[in-house]
Amino acid sequence: MTPDQIPAATTPIPHSPHSVARPAIGGGRGGKRQPRRMPPRPNQALRPRSGSAKALPALESGNIRIIPLGGVEEVGKNMTAVEYEGDILVVDMGFTFPNDDTPGVDYIIPDATYLETNKHRIKGVIITHAHLDHIGGIPYIMPKIGNPPLYTTLLSAVMIKKRQEEFPQLPALDIQTIEPHQHLTLGHFKIRFFTVTHTIPDSFGVIIDTPYGNLIFTGDIKIDTKDNIPVESEFKTFEKLGKEKTLLLVAESTNVEKPGFSYPEREVQENLRQIIADVPGRIVIGTFASMFERIVYMVQASENLGKKVVIEGRSMRNNVEIAKELGILKVRKETIIPAEQIGDYPENKIVILATGAQGDEFAALMRMSTKEHKHVKLKKGDTILLSSSVIPGNEKSVQKLKDNLSRQGAKIIHYGIADVHSSGHSYQGELEWIHKMLKPKFFIPVHGHHSMLRVHADMAVRLGVEEKNAIVPDNGMVIEIADQGGRIFAHKETVSSKVVMVDGLGAGNVQEVVIRDRQALAQDGMFVIIAMVDLKTGQVRKSPDIISRGFIYLKESQDLLRQVRSQIKKVIEDSTRQMNPINFDYVKNAIREDVGKYLFQKTHKRPIILPVLIEV
Amino acid sequence: MTPDQIPAATTPIPHSPHSVARPAIGGGRGGKRQPRRMPPRPNQALRPRSGSAKALPALESGNIRIIPLGGVEEVGKNMTAVEYEGDILVVDMGFTFPNDDTPGVDYIIPDATYLETNKHRIKGVIITHAHLDHIGGIPYIMPKIGNPPLYTTLLSAVMIKKRQEEFPQLPALDIQTIEPHQHLTLGHFKIRFFTVTHTIPDSFGVIIDTPYGNLIFTGDIKIDTKDNIPVESEFKTFEKLGKEKTLLLVAESTNVEKPGFSYPEREVQENLRQIIADVPGRIVIGTFASMFERIVYMVQASENLGKKVVIEGRSMRNNVEIAKELGILKVRKETIIPAEQIGDYPENKIVILATGAQGDEFAALMRMSTKEHKHVKLKKGDTILLSSSVIPGNEKSVQKLKDNLSRQGAKIIHYGIADVHSSGHSYQGELEWIHKMLKPKFFIPVHGHHSMLRVHADMAVRLGVEEKNAIVPDNGMVIEIADQGGRIFAHKETVSSKVVMVDGLGAGNVQEVVIRDRQALAQDGMFVIIAMVDLKTGQVRKSPDIISRGFIYLKESQDLLRQVRSQIKKVIEDSTRQMNPINFDYVKNAIREDVGKYLFQKTHKRPIILPVLIEV
Repeated sequence: MTPDQIPAATTPIPHSPHSVARPAIGGGRGGKRQPRRMPPRPNQALRPRSGSAKALPALESGNIRIIPLGGVEEVGKNMTAVEYEGDILVVDMGFTFPNDDTPGVDYIIPDATYLETNKHRIKGVIITHAHLDHIGGIPYIMPKIGNPPLYTTLLSAVMIKKRQEEFPQLPALDIQTIEPHQHLTLGHFKIRFFTVTHTIPDSFGVIIDTPYGNLIFTGDIKIDTKDNIPVESEFKTFEKLGKEKTLLLVAESTNVEKPGFSYPEREVQENLRQIIADVPGRIVIGTFASMFERIVYMVQASENLGKKVVIEGRSMRNNVEIAKELGILKVRKETIIPAEQIGDYPENKIVILATGAQGDEFAALMRMSTKEHKHVKLKKGDTILLSSSVIPGNEKSVQKLKDNLSRQGAKIIHYGIADVHSSGHSYQGELEWIHKMLKPKFFIPVHGHHSMLRVHADMAVRLGVEEKNAIVPDNGMVIEIADQGGRIFAHKETVSSKVVMVDGLGAGNVQEVVIRDRQALAQDGMFVIIAMVDLKTGQVRKSPDIISRGFIYLKESQDLLRQVRSQIKKVIEDSTRQMNPINFDYVKNAIREDVGKYLFQKTHKRPIILPVLIEV
Repeated sequence: MTPDQIPAATTPIPHSPHSVARPAIGGGRGGKRQPRRMPPRPNQALRPRSGSAKALPALESGNIRIIPLGGVEEVGKNMTAVEYEGDILVVDMGFTFPNDDTPGVDYIIPDATYLETNKHRIKGVIITHAHLDHIGGIPYIMPKIGNPPLYTTLLSAVMIKKRQEEFPQLPALDIQTIEPHQHLTLGHFKIRFFTVTHTIPDSFGVIIDTPYGNLIFTGDIKIDTKDNIPVESEFKTFEKLGKEKTLLLVAESTNVEKPGFSYPEREVQENLRQIIADVPGRIVIGTFASMFERIVYMVQASENLGKKVVIEGRSMRNNVEIAKELGILKVRKETIIPAEQIGDYPENKIVILATGAQGDEFAALMRMSTKEHKHVKLKKGDTILLSSSVIPGNEKSVQKLKDNLSRQGAKIIHYGIADVHSSGHSYQGELEWIHKMLKPKFFIPVHGHHSMLRVHADMAVRLGVEEKNAIVPDNGMVIEIADQGGRIFAHKETVSSKVVMVDGLGAGNVQEVVIRDRQALAQDGMFVIIAMVDLKTGQVRKSPDIISRGFIYLKESQDLLRQVRSQIKKVIEDSTRQMNPINFDYVKNAIREDVGKYLFQKTHKRPIILPVLIEV
């Protein structure tokens, strides 16, 4: 066996689709679709994602830095660092779910390298609410940044602790529960909070006092309205804030491209109550476990209507348990029943709340739709209410869910045909209202893809922010307020902002090359060639062996295999003739090229070819 | 080398995620997401996809069969067979694009097994219009069903021929060009046509005369309206048809869940004209090459506005060429200029039509957005108009495109913020109007997912079709009109309706196991183990070799590799002790199980493990 085989296995670069080995294989792709590759990182060409080579200048006294570390080139994994007088404050610590570009990956978390390097200066972490795009990164990042104290409201604290139970090996978090009216001093930071409307209770925005005015972080926010006019309580909150000076507004942008006002949650809830009251038989309601307020409302409403509630799905059950513990949900013991007791009540007394409205393969709703649910067998007369939108990327799985449900004869009500869902994020009309109420001098849009942040910045400028004072950030950008609040600018220097993947137990050390190989394997599979070569003569002993997966159905391709084997023998013997000693790397490259060309010609597929030469 | 290695390679079943080998590996998945698997085929459990075991009864004289072979459990790959007095007529022959469930696959085509078996009875194929979901399957299916004569209108004929040039090895098609007012007799079929509004000229619906009334196939159809009232020409067509007796309506369902009326294409075009007239600088318009009429309109409008047009993208260039050849587009020679001449004209005289509005990685628009386009460098002052919707599943790539475009400083106009796109498929309002005009006795909804067809059937019943007369089909279902047009029913027996994949050069012989392996490889990669075993003693010679791709980054996992190697050695030597002769299958299974368990414990990943034992 050649000594280079182990390094070859652990240095996969030559076999990745963009390395030298691949273009050499075929004779052009003949118009056929190219293998997928990592997402083009548009600004990767402009700046290094691992932070700029030149050191960031030290922060002058009196200046303030805002460093978005996640959530500004995507929807998800929100995390922002604020720096002032040598102290660092972190706002939120989320994660996001992977997409087609990152197969096999569990989560993507913000790059916390800058915080790791400066962990001695971190005075605290503030979590604005308990959704995963704001708390998901905690178990992965907190241990690396010295586990600083974490400040949040009661419900969020309980939910963070509950989630942390899944990571028993981690040190306990230092969670400090705050009240929204509380003032907090962390190092040089003077911090206040304001309650905001979202889809989970105890959500708040953050105010950092500076000598030059307030820095306001909205967190996730919608505005409660009636007939597109903010209700009294919203008006009071923002009127009060507006009377103070807003130096900087950092506002979310999730729905900035949607005109008008988001449908009020209150009205969604009333519509749901009406449907629950009116259905002739059983009703199964699918929604996100994260719609905490709505779930609490539906349980309460069902009880008021004299119905029994079944909760299906672990995350939803957890949330209902927490809501009961904290007194957010007050129901009689007998209202929530286990699924096995469904048959004990009349059909029109049964309300089933279930996870899986996104077509999640193993969630309660999908199991009902495929007749795999142990206790809930759907039939004609049942109503399915999907109280959720379709998250981009989930269209196909939601369609599958609807098809399967439809085959059971159930009637389906979804947000495309009735007002049974509303987003927790402000639409244009609400965002404009926030801008008008707060009249910020400086503006940074966050929580959105670049094009959305750009639309939000344009809105701010249209509403009065000077163009130079609205900065569209990238992850890792260092934005500074200087000259006693007189000027805002982005440094040329950046901090590290790589795509950090949680992949099984490995967090942060997944290399792009592994992902690229997964993509290549998914497209064309692989083709391992094992040949025994006489070290003296270069002759191949026996017929070479082939192992292939994900390429073509070899059982029906015996001719192709026979030809490949004889071709391999020929390549090895031709290339080793007159060669002494045998250069095994050279021979392996020749096999890769030759067999690759041959397989492409015969199949128009390009499997990863892995030659193994065994010296005998 | 053991003789079983080659069969192992070509019988991949034991290594697929659902086979016996996998569950044995770990100790439960510990709440971690499961590997993805093939889409649940909801009705696979109910009936065999390869057609029913029991033979379909022979068709009685006077009865009519409708057999949807594609397009009724999906949007795409439309194909329907009609059978009467021993003759078969085929309507449309499309394909569809693969999704996440079918990685690496090029296209999915209808299962034509039934047509192959009965090819001597096929009298002709009618193609209603030249979109890929109606013509895409032609090169793959026509050769297998005896290349029967194909009937279609002029534009479609030219486009089919153009596409067929990519398949020079195939026998020439026998294409007969028809006029919409023409009558056609094919065997016992008496056929007429009616022109329909869609997004490509020369689209038509099909009428088959029977002694009991008309069978009407709408094809893809929208209704041209003004203020939600069908225009005169539509009214005339359907009034005439309505006066005859409609025995059966077979209508498309793509937009059946959208309330109201689709925005009229005429008004979209007028809006586009206005934007092209008003932009201060260059305008780049991204749309689907399939929006044939709109593209023709935009070229014409640009010329009328004194502007030059650049066409970027092969498919769009092809279509414009065809439109010019057929006289559908009449422009002066100097109106369409090559991209290199962009600089020769003032910026506000430049209109660029480009493919890639779906974020297609290598299309013109994406290359512009990533600064990789040779001639078009975007800048502030440019306007990008995305005259397209986002096809479900493409949200992420379209978002990437918008982000990249936004970074170039261009202004983006898209259908979310302006009426610059409209679908070519009827909304609810239009479908209801069609039903009311035609008053069918029997109804079969087609072109849609099951839940959409169900909604369409419910609509038909609401509008007067008897419930037993509206049949929601599956692919392969055999629907029969019997008793002199008195009764419609679906046979229990079905014809073959498998998922037929075009994968490189292999069409139809891609096995599910290959796809499952691709999915498993994409999730967790693979891990090949090569060990030399002394045939006499069972001792392992040298340290086993490992090749892995797509699993973890092995370069940083040398400890893990060392431990795996010593574990492999131990497993082999333990399991071969006292074994004579050595059962290599047993040993390989032991390695798979043991190493799999170990790797999962250490990484929470489950690579496909492929042990190779070499006898020495």
